[in-house]
Amino acid sequence: MELTNLFRQIEFIKEVDKLKYILRKTKLFASDRNENDAEHSWHLSLMAIVLAEHANFPIDVLKVIKMLLIHDLVEIDAGDTFIYDTQKSHDNTVEERQAAKRIFGLLPDHQAAELIALWEEFEEQQTNEAKFARAMDRLEPLLQNTSNNGGTWREFGVGYGDVYAKKQVIQQGSLTIWQYAEQLLNDSVEKGILTK
Amino acid sequence: MELTNLFRQIEFIKEVDKLKYILRKTKLFASDRNENDAEHSWHLSLMAIVLAEHANFPIDVLKVIKMLLIHDLVEIDAGDTFIYDTQKSHDNTVEERQAAKRIFGLLPDHQAAELIALWEEFEEQQTNEAKFARAMDRLEPLLQNTSNNGGTWREFGVGYGDVYAKKQVIQQGSLTIWQYAEQLLNDSVEKGILTK
Repeated sequence: MELTNLFRQIEFIKEVDKLKYILRKTKLFASDRNENDAEHSWHLSLMAIVLAEHANFPIDVLKVIKMLLIHDLVEIDAGDTFIYDTQKSHDNTVEERQAAKRIFGLLPDHQAAELIALWEEFEEQQTNEAKFARAMDRLEPLLQNTSNNGGTWREFGVGYGDVYAKKQVIQQGSLTIWQYAEQLLNDSVEKGILTK
Repeated sequence: MELTNLFRQIEFIKEVDKLKYILRKTKLFASDRNENDAEHSWHLSLMAIVLAEHANFPIDVLKVIKMLLIHDLVEIDAGDTFIYDTQKSHDNTVEERQAAKRIFGLLPDHQAAELIALWEEFEEQQTNEAKFARAMDRLEPLLQNTSNNGGTWREFGVGYGDVYAKKQVIQQGSLTIWQYAEQLLNDSVEKGILTK
């Protein structure tokens, strides 16, 4: 039984390597190199560790990190959706649900069920852990874009209103971090790297 | 106080982005593209989650993941050391200790102390969590090299004895995983991608 589980887990471990090829629109800090989903997932997980004290409520940090490590795995099949793309659905689509079933389904059944449930919890944004994890996911590209002279905001002509609407969910995870993020958005307008 | 901490944490978050530029000798699965340390750290963390049940002893999974997320950060200053490099010290060197002090030192004092202690615990290999984390760190490149027709073993002419010596520490974290890993090494010799 142990070895049967292990063989399935190894297949999953090999498959998820593909996350390293999924490129995001956002660039690394002060860089013109696109970030990939694996690097992004690592960065958010480490952010969750160092920023956990700012959560609005007690959080299970391990659960937050599990969510962050797996939150983009469905993009191996479904591809990255740019957050400001108005043509494409941002809810978990049929394609993403099928991807979750296929990729997590490589694991032993109990683990597949656990990780699919965690991914759904992240997508549904109802629990404290999901809200804090999402705050990390919205904060990182904000820091990257401000370090890149506007980054994707300028590249794709996204204005303050749209950015503000996406970023304000940070406050559901952490009012302290949102206070900082809102200031960054205002500073970006003043600097002319985000248009109001 | 909260905001003072946050400013220091943000500086750390920006600085660790540099881990994405530190290339390892090992290539991605079935690929000729070098893996970077951020991707590697993400992969090991996810491996720890799915493989935790095989640990020889009860482990604190959050602690293991924290170790894995930060274990290579010193390489931002000290660079990657190839595991089969016989010219370079593999213990944590003066250079690595200085790097830990500088990089973790960007954080608020209590967090800097916690993460430096975790990094040292990983390096010293005495605790259950450190042993399991190290098992992950040794397993991933083994899987990568077997997927790459010998990978760095062939590229740098490393033989079975040296590989075995490095890989056998996996058993200190998990006998089950070591049983699998040892079989992979023997299979690699049979396939002619590892020389005995």
